[in-house]
Amino acid sequence: MISRVLSADLPAHVGHRVTIAGWLHRRRELKSVTFLIIRDRSGLAQVVLPGQDHEGPAADVTEAGEETVLQIDGLVVANAQAPGGVELTEPAVTMLSGRAESPPFDLYRPTLTATLPTILDHAPTSLRHPQLRAGFEVAAASAAGFRVALDAAGFTEIATPKIVESATEGGANVFRVDYFGRDAYLAQSPQFYKQAMVGVFERVYEVGPAFRAEPHDTGRHLAQYTSLDAELGFITDHFDVMPVCRDAVAGMVDFVGERGRPALKSLGAALPNVPAEIPHIHFTTAMAMISSATGVDVTGEDDLSPAHERWLCEWAEREHDSELLFVTGYPLASKPFYTHPDPARPQYSNGFDLLFRGTEIVTGGQRLHRHEDYLAALARLGFDPAPFAGYLQVFRHGMPPHGGFAIGLERWTARLTGASNVRQVTLFPRDLHRLSP
Amino acid sequence: MISRVLSADLPAHVGHRVTIAGWLHRRRELKSVTFLIIRDRSGLAQVVLPGQDHEGPAADVTEAGEETVLQIDGLVVANAQAPGGVELTEPAVTMLSGRAESPPFDLYRPTLTATLPTILDHAPTSLRHPQLRAGFEVAAASAAGFRVALDAAGFTEIATPKIVESATEGGANVFRVDYFGRDAYLAQSPQFYKQAMVGVFERVYEVGPAFRAEPHDTGRHLAQYTSLDAELGFITDHFDVMPVCRDAVAGMVDFVGERGRPALKSLGAALPNVPAEIPHIHFTTAMAMISSATGVDVTGEDDLSPAHERWLCEWAEREHDSELLFVTGYPLASKPFYTHPDPARPQYSNGFDLLFRGTEIVTGGQRLHRHEDYLAALARLGFDPAPFAGYLQVFRHGMPPHGGFAIGLERWTARLTGASNVRQVTLFPRDLHRLSP
Repeated sequence: MISRVLSADLPAHVGHRVTIAGWLHRRRELKSVTFLIIRDRSGLAQVVLPGQDHEGPAADVTEAGEETVLQIDGLVVANAQAPGGVELTEPAVTMLSGRAESPPFDLYRPTLTATLPTILDHAPTSLRHPQLRAGFEVAAASAAGFRVALDAAGFTEIATPKIVESATEGGANVFRVDYFGRDAYLAQSPQFYKQAMVGVFERVYEVGPAFRAEPHDTGRHLAQYTSLDAELGFITDHFDVMPVCRDAVAGMVDFVGERGRPALKSLGAALPNVPAEIPHIHFTTAMAMISSATGVDVTGEDDLSPAHERWLCEWAEREHDSELLFVTGYPLASKPFYTHPDPARPQYSNGFDLLFRGTEIVTGGQRLHRHEDYLAALARLGFDPAPFAGYLQVFRHGMPPHGGFAIGLERWTARLTGASNVRQVTLFPRDLHRLSP
Repeated sequence: MISRVLSADLPAHVGHRVTIAGWLHRRRELKSVTFLIIRDRSGLAQVVLPGQDHEGPAADVTEAGEETVLQIDGLVVANAQAPGGVELTEPAVTMLSGRAESPPFDLYRPTLTATLPTILDHAPTSLRHPQLRAGFEVAAASAAGFRVALDAAGFTEIATPKIVESATEGGANVFRVDYFGRDAYLAQSPQFYKQAMVGVFERVYEVGPAFRAEPHDTGRHLAQYTSLDAELGFITDHFDVMPVCRDAVAGMVDFVGERGRPALKSLGAALPNVPAEIPHIHFTTAMAMISSATGVDVTGEDDLSPAHERWLCEWAEREHDSELLFVTGYPLASKPFYTHPDPARPQYSNGFDLLFRGTEIVTGGQRLHRHEDYLAALARLGFDPAPFAGYLQVFRHGMPPHGGFAIGLERWTARLTGASNVRQVTLFPRDLHRLSP
């Protein structure tokens, strides 16, 4: 391994010669001196080169473009004006990469001043910008926190098939795959599999890709996203699922607080408080409230519009001091066929959404668990049960009352970091128009 | 939540009425008494019902097939002959599922006596068998251990695109996707993306699905498998990657020891000792040794055969008391185009495999990191560089010497548990012939 000191650790080495290595973040040439700013995974370090008449490795370095990877041996000297209060002097420079072409934007500026398409076209390089990188540190910490919270609650991690025989969530918006000469599809969610695995482990979760052939070209739709899925058995109804969802979100927030706080800070974003019990409101109450507040009668509608979601989030913050709000009991007609109805009011569901800062970030609920209920639900919707045979098999053999939820990692991260477009926090986004890099 | 005591915790409740819930694992009817064995995620519990002339809920229960989900309130009584030393008497039984059809095999027998195709056709139910389930507990613990080991070594978790513009690992064995009317492919590995992300985080890992349209119908090929991938920068050569790989494997073994030991025991399997330094041997030395030992000259061959891998594992166990062995320096011709050559002997690579109990379970090595080296490698192989433009972009902009490795989770789990076919430890396997359930 190249033996080196990370930039962030340099202050502990004042007075000693050390080796650092990283990307040439910026070169500033003054008359008598040249500064090299070196970027590694821990931060930035300043290197002082003698002026242009200096002989030796500096000549090479002068020609190397920004983003060239350099290894530098030098003496660590205190300098209050340098980043971290230290700089490297008397440097000996080795080039570790090939000579780099400079990217089509300046990575050293505080904010990337390029259009989103340019940023995404050059994702392998633009992601090196500390602010873009920060979004992914938040995403990684969120996924880790989700796992830790569910591990602690007795959940088992699963990995399910992403190539399936038929669409789970309905026939539209599904990608077709040529599977050894026959038609197959990319999984829109692990819905069937996580339910089936409740029959094995009782409590399961998965962190994995989900695929939607979304024809929408908006700031919140992706063709591939990371789905944080959980499912658990032996519930009474969806009110037993919501606390588990709350704990998962609290775990994500905790982990971002532990691992991603500098990243969050660099984005000017703040963590929400997750109440011990997140407030909840029934869909019908929410619609009545919105109707009364806005003077527009929306009580006959089946779903919340984005404007309704924003209104409700403002209400929850005002009334409950909470940036998070559960909306329960959506009309059954707006929910997938596997959704359990409210036994008292069967036109409403035992489903819920979790709203956060104006947007739905979680969908969940109780599922049907009796084979005959599935057959009745498919018949009611006029669906042919044949393509669902694989899905329905498990319900023939005894399934407990169960439910679960799914969190879209990118949508969550966008809300948390304040990104206006979900693509800003997706490593290499896939959408209607984008398939590379 | 249905308030209940898990089977494993019953001994702490002797003398009290409690509620348990789970699947009817087995019903044994004797003349004067009926035993119900209830299975939950923690184990088995015995319930004693009065004989058939008993009135009340027992009538329902008598009709319910095995695998029906029951909730039972009863008095916990010590009985040395019952599983766990206790049983439930004076039971009140409620059916939580629909009445279950019995599966086409007996889940209560110590081993599932059905053919592999039958087991896989009924995967949602067969996975409930404690021995099948155990394999997945080992897989889940292995994945968790991989993450913990790499987190501890400063790696950042990433999630990369699974729909890509062109095949990474070569044009064959790739699934085609209809991507909004144009051709795309399922990712054969996150190779490009993990390399690109070394430019951002220096050290990254991913646990995710990989897709190979394998035309082979063998016990070790799958169309989808879980790839445990890692990549790190600022290495000198592949000998800096191997210790990280060693630590990842050690982390997996440790976690299986912590979380999966009962599962492993039920499979009659043992954990390997992972030496502080796993022994390694150069490909040419290995081939010379095999030639000399077997009398068949294999020194001209480009790759190890399965028989060679078994021979080398026996040798490592005999000579080094190790079930793990690194083979280094495979001929460059047998390795993908991004493999770094051995600078001293350019016909050999800075690549390695890790063999475990007779099979290769890890492939890794140092990668090329200079743009011009990629162009030369593609030219040497006669490949058109155009489809690789997205892949090559990152190397224009400064990449450090780097390398990494990938572990196939199912193949690892099969070796660890002694499963003869990788499908036995794959939740819902996908292969040449199988696309459901």
